[in-house]
Amino acid sequence: MTTPFDWTLATRAAKMNPSAIREILKLTERPGTISLAGGLPSPQTFPIDLFTQACNTVMERDGAAALQYAASEGYEPLRRAVADMLPWAVDPGQVLITTGSQQALDLIGKVLLDKDSRMLVETPTYLGALQAFAPQEPIAVGVASDDDGLLVEDFAAQVGSGVDKARLAYVQPNFQNPTGRTLSEQRRTALVQQAGALGIPLIEDNPYGDLWFGTPPPAPLTARNPDGCIYLGSFSKVLAPGLRVGFLVAPQAVYPKLLQAKQAADLHTPGFNQRVVAEVLKDGFLERHVPTIRALYQHQRDTMLAALARDMAGLDVAWTRPAGGMFLWLRLPEGMDAQSLLPAAVARHVAFVPGAPFYAGAADPRTLRLSYVTASSSEIDTAIAALADAIRAQQAAG
Amino acid sequence: MTTPFDWTLATRAAKMNPSAIREILKLTERPGTISLAGGLPSPQTFPIDLFTQACNTVMERDGAAALQYAASEGYEPLRRAVADMLPWAVDPGQVLITTGSQQALDLIGKVLLDKDSRMLVETPTYLGALQAFAPQEPIAVGVASDDDGLLVEDFAAQVGSGVDKARLAYVQPNFQNPTGRTLSEQRRTALVQQAGALGIPLIEDNPYGDLWFGTPPPAPLTARNPDGCIYLGSFSKVLAPGLRVGFLVAPQAVYPKLLQAKQAADLHTPGFNQRVVAEVLKDGFLERHVPTIRALYQHQRDTMLAALARDMAGLDVAWTRPAGGMFLWLRLPEGMDAQSLLPAAVARHVAFVPGAPFYAGAADPRTLRLSYVTASSSEIDTAIAALADAIRAQQAAG
Repeated sequence: MTTPFDWTLATRAAKMNPSAIREILKLTERPGTISLAGGLPSPQTFPIDLFTQACNTVMERDGAAALQYAASEGYEPLRRAVADMLPWAVDPGQVLITTGSQQALDLIGKVLLDKDSRMLVETPTYLGALQAFAPQEPIAVGVASDDDGLLVEDFAAQVGSGVDKARLAYVQPNFQNPTGRTLSEQRRTALVQQAGALGIPLIEDNPYGDLWFGTPPPAPLTARNPDGCIYLGSFSKVLAPGLRVGFLVAPQAVYPKLLQAKQAADLHTPGFNQRVVAEVLKDGFLERHVPTIRALYQHQRDTMLAALARDMAGLDVAWTRPAGGMFLWLRLPEGMDAQSLLPAAVARHVAFVPGAPFYAGAADPRTLRLSYVTASSSEIDTAIAALADAIRAQQAAG
Repeated sequence: MTTPFDWTLATRAAKMNPSAIREILKLTERPGTISLAGGLPSPQTFPIDLFTQACNTVMERDGAAALQYAASEGYEPLRRAVADMLPWAVDPGQVLITTGSQQALDLIGKVLLDKDSRMLVETPTYLGALQAFAPQEPIAVGVASDDDGLLVEDFAAQVGSGVDKARLAYVQPNFQNPTGRTLSEQRRTALVQQAGALGIPLIEDNPYGDLWFGTPPPAPLTARNPDGCIYLGSFSKVLAPGLRVGFLVAPQAVYPKLLQAKQAADLHTPGFNQRVVAEVLKDGFLERHVPTIRALYQHQRDTMLAALARDMAGLDVAWTRPAGGMFLWLRLPEGMDAQSLLPAAVARHVAFVPGAPFYAGAADPRTLRLSYVTASSSEIDTAIAALADAIRAQQAAG
């Protein structure tokens, strides 16, 4: 008998290796380690009792249908609820329920990307999007970005032409993962105008948009040109990620293709989960619930910003000041490398994610991502002090 | 503003169109139509009370973890339960929990298939597999098959060589969808031997294996050479499809690649659903439950076989006699076409699925698939009589 070592794998498989982040997250499972690495919403925000009640209601009222095969488009009342909650006119027929918004990226890649297709992303960009598009073997090109998000002039410069014309541009305009940045109103207007003029689909991923502190972010790109964008949303950050319920909103011209890709990928998102989410959404629950998440995360962001100001003083470290979301982005002193810093940090019982994997092109090795939503305020204080200590030790050694 | 009609889609998107079956299934939603078309398990087999209880137990004991992000491999106790229930020695580390076994096909395609890769399938084969592999744009080649399943000589003849050597062979050895056929013991031995000698991964899809009538089917292909096969299983037919919990078992040499593809596809299968299934499986529930499904489906198969013998007499119609599963395969008289028959059947309030979409190559237009698990026994009687009437009318008209 032969073994699978004889098997010929797809060429893309050579690039499929356990991600750097996965390996780091394993380290954080050591007892006593405070993780600022993961993007785990705070479990204290999960409305467990309400979910339990919704499970019982769904099973009692609609158990057989909830447990049966269902339409690939999604559960009709949930599609309507999604359409109703979005801030522009959305036909529920344009809403496709996905198994987390991660799956929406997979479907979009299948419909828009061929091998070697050019695609534009922010610098840096969401690592999970790079991974979701990777099976189609596109060429990801980073558009230069600053504190106000992607630079629209560079977007236009990078679009390319002919067969090399970008097939899509992927953006997280609100409290971006990994940087926490928000695309300014002015740039949104300019980006939508440019993308429309150039015929480039904007893939607007908005998992964090509801988690604003103080004032809401500017209107979504899709609201400004629904026919020129595919919008991705998720219940993972405002309800709970473990149900894996997300959605996309797509123009009629590509919706049937995305639907076909969805059907081939997993037939449909669990009907039970869709009904539980629809049940929980009833009576405006999110309007009461989301402000409590905002308040918690704003407090934890403030704790982290204060700790950074205190502990990193004199260290030539810079960081972003997110107006919402879950992450901030830190830049180490000149000559330092976040990947090399990690073992020293883990030895001090704190974990973070080095920034390099978030870049489509050349990475800035000094960058790293910190989450302020999983650890408690007192853990954040401890962790930032430990991180500063690790940086100081590294500087003294270097 | 431009519209997405300007967008350049992936070349594969041209082939992504609503499937024939989807359109047919819409017809069956008309009130009064008896559908023998779908593959919907009988909802009376869903253990709704037990599921409700399991939901409550999971939420109470483990709610925060069930609602949080989780490992892409799956929930450890469920992976162990899967390993334990399979009839060969399986390390839980080789089990990957998937969002239905449909997703396992998507992941396998990503890891094993490049554009224009040759892949072997049965004649006919599961339509959903053709759809799941389609995004990788392989060339699907049908291996000749008879009532005992795939012909191993033709398998060897179709393998190809060099860059055209088949990357995988996809088989449903038990009560195959769409034909209801079972691969004989002798052919299993020969197929595993040949595939091993030739270095061809066998993708063994076994959603129906537990639904045997009378005697269990021969041992799985994978049990005979675990390093030469990827095995796919599902809880959709023995518990309920609406939770979308399936699994694959893969050799260590490809498991990490499949895991990476899983992570990129949807991060993980809902942790809540995995826990509910693990809870339901406890204390040997399936051993008590599955025999009741077998008895029900056997009775309905018998009803359909008796109705066919009675109503198709003298019509030159042939059909398979499945020893388990959910489907039988029917062949119309010479000169008839199942696609053309469908409107006449729907006019008589009965729906089926024409066989053509199940063929990788040239289709036999006389074939069609009938399910005996969704409709009740008395509906089956009514539906088969109506189908015979439609055939007779078509013959008279022809």
